[in-house]
Amino acid sequence: MDEFLAAAIEEAKQGLAEGGIPIGSVLVIDGKIVGRGHNKRVQKGSSVLHAEMDCLENAGRFSAAEYQRATLYSTLSPCDMCSGAVLLYGIPKVIVGENTTFQGPEAYVKSRGVDVTVVDNTECKQLMHDFIANHPTLWNEDIGE
Amino acid sequence: MDEFLAAAIEEAKQGLAEGGIPIGSVLVIDGKIVGRGHNKRVQKGSSVLHAEMDCLENAGRFSAAEYQRATLYSTLSPCDMCSGAVLLYGIPKVIVGENTTFQGPEAYVKSRGVDVTVVDNTECKQLMHDFIANHPTLWNEDIGE
Repeated sequence: MDEFLAAAIEEAKQGLAEGGIPIGSVLVIDGKIVGRGHNKRVQKGSSVLHAEMDCLENAGRFSAAEYQRATLYSTLSPCDMCSGAVLLYGIPKVIVGENTTFQGPEAYVKSRGVDVTVVDNTECKQLMHDFIANHPTLWNEDIGE
Repeated sequence: MDEFLAAAIEEAKQGLAEGGIPIGSVLVIDGKIVGRGHNKRVQKGSSVLHAEMDCLENAGRFSAAEYQRATLYSTLSPCDMCSGAVLLYGIPKVIVGENTTFQGPEAYVKSRGVDVTVVDNTECKQLMHDFIANHPTLWNEDIGE
């Protein structure tokens, strides 16, 4: 498996071990991981720290020129908020673990010029399938449903 | 002036006094302010805490039913990320101080069913006009340009 997707899955598992929602993300620039994160709704009582947002926040401040060389990895299809962060910063490429348990606005993000690739990873799907079955109310809160 | 927009402007001014980017936001549910915030790029080295995100984060966790009774106020037109947060949580109404110094994806947000009202407030415009003139590099970083 892609080492960067593997790192995002590690983040998802760490989130699960903390009692949180198992979604992980890493930001890669010039072939190096510059930030990593996982969903912090439970751990920090956070409404904005989805995995991708936690990853971007942990990565810190970058210029537009740096973001334009970046790839964002997420174990799950980015929601409207996280997709919006990708668009804000002009991140050109997104690698998605799976989009069967949840799908964000992938068509819209692509229409704005972003290269979105869904790899349909079994482990990503299993993590979310099990989590949603066990914690449906928490999951619905996380996606505004 | 609308007391809630006035509160968002207070937040923007607080951000400026802290050496930050003067954009403020409040979240109102059932006629009460339940969260307030301002841009924290400078103060926290944050790439995700735009005013609206800081406001949502400070407000804490809400159910979809609660967000669906909410109005988000921002002194400036919400960017792709902050607009995405509005869409994620199904916030039905956004009141924008101004959209002349920066304009987010208002047409798209409206096409997704959100009521977006721009009030074209002079004080909001002056705050951003002066800030952008004095700190163009910082401002460009904040909007990914």
